[in-house]
Amino acid sequence: MTKEKQFVKEITTMEDDFAQWYTDVVKKADLVDYASVRGSMIIRPYGYAIWEAIRAALDQMIKETGHENIYMPLLIPESLLQKEKDHIEGFAPEVAWVTQGGAESLSERLVIRPTSEVLFGEHYAQIIHSYRDLPKLYNQWANVVRWEKTTRPFLRSLEFLWQEGHTCHATGTEAQEETERMLEIYAEICEHFLAIPVLRGRKTDQEKFAGAVHTLTIESLMHDGKALQTGTSHYLGTGFAEAFGIQFTDKNGELQTVHQTSWGITTRLIGALIMVHGDNRGLVVPPRIAPKQVMIVPIAQHKEGVLDKAYALKEQLKSVARVDIDASDKKPGWKFNEYEMKGIPLRLEIGPKDIEKDQVVLTRRDTGEKMPVPMNELETKVTELLHAIQDNLFARAKAHREEKTTVARTMDEFKTALVENPGFIQAMWCGSPACENFIKDETSATSRCIPFEQEHVSGHCVCCGEKAEHLVYWAKAY
Amino acid sequence: MTKEKQFVKEITTMEDDFAQWYTDVVKKADLVDYASVRGSMIIRPYGYAIWEAIRAALDQMIKETGHENIYMPLLIPESLLQKEKDHIEGFAPEVAWVTQGGAESLSERLVIRPTSEVLFGEHYAQIIHSYRDLPKLYNQWANVVRWEKTTRPFLRSLEFLWQEGHTCHATGTEAQEETERMLEIYAEICEHFLAIPVLRGRKTDQEKFAGAVHTLTIESLMHDGKALQTGTSHYLGTGFAEAFGIQFTDKNGELQTVHQTSWGITTRLIGALIMVHGDNRGLVVPPRIAPKQVMIVPIAQHKEGVLDKAYALKEQLKSVARVDIDASDKKPGWKFNEYEMKGIPLRLEIGPKDIEKDQVVLTRRDTGEKMPVPMNELETKVTELLHAIQDNLFARAKAHREEKTTVARTMDEFKTALVENPGFIQAMWCGSPACENFIKDETSATSRCIPFEQEHVSGHCVCCGEKAEHLVYWAKAY
Ligand SMILES: [Zn+2]
Ligand SMILES: [Zn+2]
Repeated sequence: MTKEKQFVKEITTMEDDFAQWYTDVVKKADLVDYASVRGSMIIRPYGYAIWEAIRAALDQMIKETGHENIYMPLLIPESLLQKEKDHIEGFAPEVAWVTQGGAESLSERLVIRPTSEVLFGEHYAQIIHSYRDLPKLYNQWANVVRWEKTTRPFLRSLEFLWQEGHTCHATGTEAQEETERMLEIYAEICEHFLAIPVLRGRKTDQEKFAGAVHTLTIESLMHDGKALQTGTSHYLGTGFAEAFGIQFTDKNGELQTVHQTSWGITTRLIGALIMVHGDNRGLVVPPRIAPKQVMIVPIAQHKEGVLDKAYALKEQLKSVARVDIDASDKKPGWKFNEYEMKGIPLRLEIGPKDIEKDQVVLTRRDTGEKMPVPMNELETKVTELLHAIQDNLFARAKAHREEKTTVARTMDEFKTALVENPGFIQAMWCGSPACENFIKDETSATSRCIPFEQEHVSGHCVCCGEKAEHLVYWAKAY
Repeated sequence: MTKEKQFVKEITTMEDDFAQWYTDVVKKADLVDYASVRGSMIIRPYGYAIWEAIRAALDQMIKETGHENIYMPLLIPESLLQKEKDHIEGFAPEVAWVTQGGAESLSERLVIRPTSEVLFGEHYAQIIHSYRDLPKLYNQWANVVRWEKTTRPFLRSLEFLWQEGHTCHATGTEAQEETERMLEIYAEICEHFLAIPVLRGRKTDQEKFAGAVHTLTIESLMHDGKALQTGTSHYLGTGFAEAFGIQFTDKNGELQTVHQTSWGITTRLIGALIMVHGDNRGLVVPPRIAPKQVMIVPIAQHKEGVLDKAYALKEQLKSVARVDIDASDKKPGWKFNEYEMKGIPLRLEIGPKDIEKDQVVLTRRDTGEKMPVPMNELETKVTELLHAIQDNLFARAKAHREEKTTVARTMDEFKTALVENPGFIQAMWCGSPACENFIKDETSATSRCIPFEQEHVSGHCVCCGEKAEHLVYWAKAY
C-alpha cells in the first residue's frame, strides 16, 4: 500500500443518496474522523474551528445577557439522577454507567452526564437563600454522553459538545421570559451567523423535554426536506426546584420555591450547516462563521513574483477578512477542489497574467461566479462579496424552506405533500396526543412545533376533523 | 434555619493550618463548591472565569505557534489503552470504567480518558502518510478523569480540565525542540500572566510520564514551602508511534516512524495561584489574569450624586481596566471583605467627601496601601498600579522561592534544611534510582527536576557520596 496521499475523490451526489452525500462531505471536508468506540467521533481541526466560531459568538451573547459560565462534574450518582421522576424516566435508557474506579467496585453506580439539571439543582439548593440571590443565570460548555443505538456524525453521536444554560428565577413569568430570550439568541446564532432560517415555536407535550413544563424550539429544514431541531429552551416550572429544595426567602420573609429554565445548543448545528448549505461539490460555510473566508491560490507559482505577490495580498487582506494561502506544491486544480470541498466562501487566484493586468480573480463558493477584480478595489470587493454570500445563503435557504412548506387540510393532502414536496407541513391540530400519535404512525412525520406566529389555515384538526386548537408544523425529522 | 446569607466568615490563618487555609480560601472566595461524587468539584463562576482567562492566553500562544485544536472522544476501549505497555501500567490503577450503556452490558469495557495519547496515536496512524503531512501539531481542551484516592480542589481531583498537546515530527530533534518550545510557553503563562516564577528542567526517569523517553517540567514553590509541578512536556520518542504504526514515506520514498510529543497544563494552575499569592485575607489574583481588576465601592451611596459618580467612573475606566461596581445595599465593610477575599487587585472607593475633593481612594490588594488619587489622573494611575501589582507579586514570589532554597551537600544538611527552611533543596545526585528512592523514603522529598541551568554545588552525590552527575532540585510536593 502506498502511503502517499490520494487526490480528493468525488463525492456521492445528494440527489442519488443524501445520507451517503452527508457522510462523504463530513469525511472529505476533513470535519470528522471515526474513532474506536462505535458512535464516537473525532472532531478534526476544520470541524472544531467551526465549532469554536459558533461558541465564541454564542458565548459573547450569553455573557452580554448577564449569564456566568460554570463547570459541573462529569459524573452523577445514580441516586441524584433519580430525584426528579420524569427526568430519570426520560434519560435512564440512554446513559453510560461507570461501575468501577481503579480496582474498586463502586457501591453506587455513576452516570456520565447526559445533561446536568440534577447537578445544577443540588448546587442551587446550596447557594440560593434570599430573593437577593435571584436570578441565578448559569451556563456550562461541556461534553455529554447519550447511549444512542444508531449514530451519525454531528447529528446523533454517543458523545457531543454543547452548552447548557440553567437558571433560577423568583417568578414563573421571569423564568418564561428567560426561555424566550434565550430562544431568540439561538435564532440569532442560526439566522445571523449560520445563515439558517428557523421556525420559532413550542413543542407539544409529547415532544417536550423530560421534566419540563414546556419546551420552546427552533426548527430548520434541511436540503432533503427533513427537519432538524436546532435549539431548545425549557421552562422547568418548580418541578426540579421542589425535588431539590431550591427555596428562597422573599421580600416579605416568606419561603418560596424558585422557577427554573434550561436551554442548550449542540455540535448538531454543524450537521445543520452541512445539510442546509452544502452542495454536490461539498461544504459551503457562511462567511460570518467561516474559519477561513478567503483562500489564495497562486497560479504558476514557480514564476518570478507570483508567490511574493500572493503573500503580499494575504497581508493586504488581513484587515478585512480571515485569509489564508496555499503555497504548497500541489496543482491549482487540486487546490480548487480541496477548498470547494471545504466550502471556503471566496477563492482568490493570482498568476503572472493577473499581475500584468494588476488584478486578481475571485470565485464565489455559493454561486461559482468568477470575476476579475482590480487590485485597488480588492478590499472593498472582498468585503462586499462576503456580505453578499452571507445574505445569499440565508435567502436561498429561506426560499427553499418556503418552497418546501405545504398546507394540508386533510390526511390525504398531508400524505401527498410528504411524497410530492417533502418538507414542512402546516396543518391544524385539535391538541390530542391520539391525533399526534396517529399522524406519526401513519406518516413518520412528527409535530415539530406550534409556531408562535399562528395562522388559521382551517377550522378542523387535520387528523380527526374536530375543532382545531393550533397550527402545527409537521415534518420527518433528524 | 434562616435562609438569609451570612457575613463572610474569618478564614483560618495559613500559619496555623495551611491546608485548612487553602480549603477556606477556595470555598470563601467562591472558586469551588463540592458535588455529590466524592472528589469531584463544581468550578464556580469566579473560579471558571480565572480558568477562562488562563485558557484564552494559552490558546492564543498555542495557535500562534502553528497548532490546531481538535476534539477526541471521552471514552477509550480497554484494548486501545493496552496498546502501549508502559502507558497502561501507569494509568490502569487510576481510571474509571464504563461497563454498561443504557440497558446493554458492554462486551468490552471503556475507560474515561485519563489522557489521550492512544486516541491521538490511532488517529495519526490514519491521517499521516507522507513527509508532507508533517509536522502534525494538534491540541485539545478537555476534561479528564483519574480515580484519585485523596483529593483536594484544583490540586488533585477525580475530574479536571486541561489542555493536552500531541504532535508528530519527522525527526527526534524536531520533536525535542517542540517539547522545549511548549515548556517555554508554559513558563510564560506562569511567569508573565500568573506571576508565578518557575524552575525549568527535566524529570528523572522515575518521575517521568508513563511512556515517555523524557519529561520536561516547570516547578513552582508554594507559600508553605511545598513544590507544585505547574506544567509538563513529554518527548515520547517512537514508542507510541511503533505501537500504533504511525509511519510516513520520507523524501527518498522510504518508510519512517514519526517522533512524538505530548504536553499539558491543568486547572491545577488555579491551586498554584492560590498558594503562591494568597494571604490571610484570602485570594490575591494577578491583574493580568484577573476577571475583575478594579472593584468600585460607593461610600454613603444613598447620598445624592454618589451612585451617579460611581457609574460614571466605571464608564471612564472601561478602556484601561476590567472594572465592576458593587452598588448593592450591603455595607461597605462587607464589600471590602468580600473583594479582598476574592483578591481583586484594586479597590476604588468614592464617597461624598471624595467628590468634594475631586478624588477617589484606591487600595492595593497586594500591599494594602491606600491612596487618594485626583480624578484627572485616574486612568494613568490605575494602569500604573495594575502593572506595579503584577510586578510586585512576581518579585515577592521569586524572593520567597530564593529565600526558601537551600544548598545541601550531605543528608544531614538535607534533613536540617527540610525542617528549618522548608522549600527547594539544591543537591547533587549520582543518577541512581537507589539514591533517589532512599531520599524519598527518608525525607518524603522527591526529585522535582534536573534544572536546565546546572550549577556544581559539590562533586559528590548528596546521598551515596559517589561522583555526582547532576544538580537536582528536591522538595516535598503536592
Ligand atoms: Zn385531532
Ligand atoms: Zn548516589
